[in-house]
Amino acid sequence: MKTYLDCIPCFFKQALAAARIAGASVKVQKKVLDELAAILPKISLRSSPPEIGRVIYSLVSEITGKTDPYLKEKKRSNELALGIYDKLAQKLASAGDKLLFAVELAIAGNIIDYGVKNTLNVDAELAKILNEEKKVIKKESKTIFDYARFKHVLKHSKNILYLADNAGEVVFDRLLIEQIKRMDEDKQIIYAVKEKPVINDALKRDAEDCGIGKIARIVSSGSDAPGTVLSLCSNNFLSMYRRADMVISKGQGNFEALSKTKRPVFFLFMAKCPVIAKDVGCKVGDVILRYHQGKK
Amino acid sequence: MKTYLDCIPCFFKQALAAARIAGASVKVQKKVLDELAAILPKISLRSSPPEIGRVIYSLVSEITGKTDPYLKEKKRSNELALGIYDKLAQKLASAGDKLLFAVELAIAGNIIDYGVKNTLNVDAELAKILNEEKKVIKKESKTIFDYARFKHVLKHSKNILYLADNAGEVVFDRLLIEQIKRMDEDKQIIYAVKEKPVINDALKRDAEDCGIGKIARIVSSGSDAPGTVLSLCSNNFLSMYRRADMVISKGQGNFEALSKTKRPVFFLFMAKCPVIAKDVGCKVGDVILRYHQGKK
Repeated sequence: MKTYLDCIPCFFKQALAAARIAGASVKVQKKVLDELAAILPKISLRSSPPEIGRVIYSLVSEITGKTDPYLKEKKRSNELALGIYDKLAQKLASAGDKLLFAVELAIAGNIIDYGVKNTLNVDAELAKILNEEKKVIKKESKTIFDYARFKHVLKHSKNILYLADNAGEVVFDRLLIEQIKRMDEDKQIIYAVKEKPVINDALKRDAEDCGIGKIARIVSSGSDAPGTVLSLCSNNFLSMYRRADMVISKGQGNFEALSKTKRPVFFLFMAKCPVIAKDVGCKVGDVILRYHQGKK
Repeated sequence: MKTYLDCIPCFFKQALAAARIAGASVKVQKKVLDELAAILPKISLRSSPPEIGRVIYSLVSEITGKTDPYLKEKKRSNELALGIYDKLAQKLASAGDKLLFAVELAIAGNIIDYGVKNTLNVDAELAKILNEEKKVIKKESKTIFDYARFKHVLKHSKNILYLADNAGEVVFDRLLIEQIKRMDEDKQIIYAVKEKPVINDALKRDAEDCGIGKIARIVSSGSDAPGTVLSLCSNNFLSMYRRADMVISKGQGNFEALSKTKRPVFFLFMAKCPVIAKDVGCKVGDVILRYHQGKK
């Protein structure tokens, strides 16, 4: 996805939030905004938002001296999500269409506000999201929630590449991957995380802490942008990306980075901002399972 | 009110919206954002948001070549508001506490979305706002909605300076001013508008078109900022401002410009953004009638 002019105010908002999370003083926060303003005219809007996001978060790290300002938040999100894992697994076990429920859970994991106080809150919030999702899903056409195709392609795929999004959310990805493995234990799943800290994106450590290691092979994509920007990925990852029978991409950042990729990808995310909603052709808050065919 | 760092992303958002309203191409919109980025580091946060707003909207006018991009919108707002004037006057006539209802109307006029399609919509929206306001008002303490003091000071004031905010809203101001005159026809009211076009702020023409001329003396403050910035006001206005027995200030922009003024002012507005809500100590969406005592 290209960057829209509406993304620019949001870049400033994100830079300010990141500077604050990094514990920067008001003076340093202002410096971050001023430096962002200085590089802004040089940024091409043909770059995708995660490519620009990478520049912004590097800038914040450089100025504040914090390489991983979201570390605490990521740990906390993992712990909170792990705290409700058993309950989620039980719910999944008693669901009618288990794969559908697991897909819903994986998307719900993308939108939970882990800033809430404890596992009980996360649990309550989840219940709300899942109920809301069901309402949304029923209304949506299959171009936005193409579960039938997802199920079909999954059935015929042996090697699956799963692109992670945020910490915390990893636990929800685990439930989906476990469900996929229960349906066919021969499936080989590669779980790709980011190479270096960027916002609250999951790293290898988060995937391990959330128990992905037992069910999938954890790899780094090589990208340190808040999305899987192929030009930044390692050759090793690119080879996996090309060869996989199926790619499952989680979150808005990965969609923004890969929405024009040449290979087929299933994008699972919630449309969190008006710009992406317009690009996708949906409403803010819509739950998306989109099949991208890619060029042949 | 000083400018907070959170205002900076919003300045970019406003500049983009103004450039679009001015009919600028995407290329020119980008130029507006780049030029804003270039002046950003030079802006002191000790300036109030309307002072910076003035710089931004001048920049947009300069780059787009449109001196009054909101002209159409202002005319339309005036027409829509005039279209429901009779209905509002009837409602006011049958209200219990007419002054309170007129104050509520004046604040409601500040938050109506005139972008809606016709007078019927405006009427429906108004009904919603007024109902919501009643709920809000009941909950608020008198520091946020100090109607008793407003009523008391009004009773003992002969010369009243009323600071206008937006076009359209002027019709609602008219209802309040008419009510004040009905209670005491000897009161002298000056209705101050902006000197030059800035966003959708009311100018002399708007005040005249909305029928203010029959009940108050229309003057320009001399300020072309989206708020009554005293350092930009004419000497003539400043003299009126100092001498008035009572100042009624409408809208968020005037509050931002005058929140630290030395003289007493009644601020009537709705808190439209998180920054102002934090500054005032209220929630976004709260209806404010705040008495500012000024330094003695």
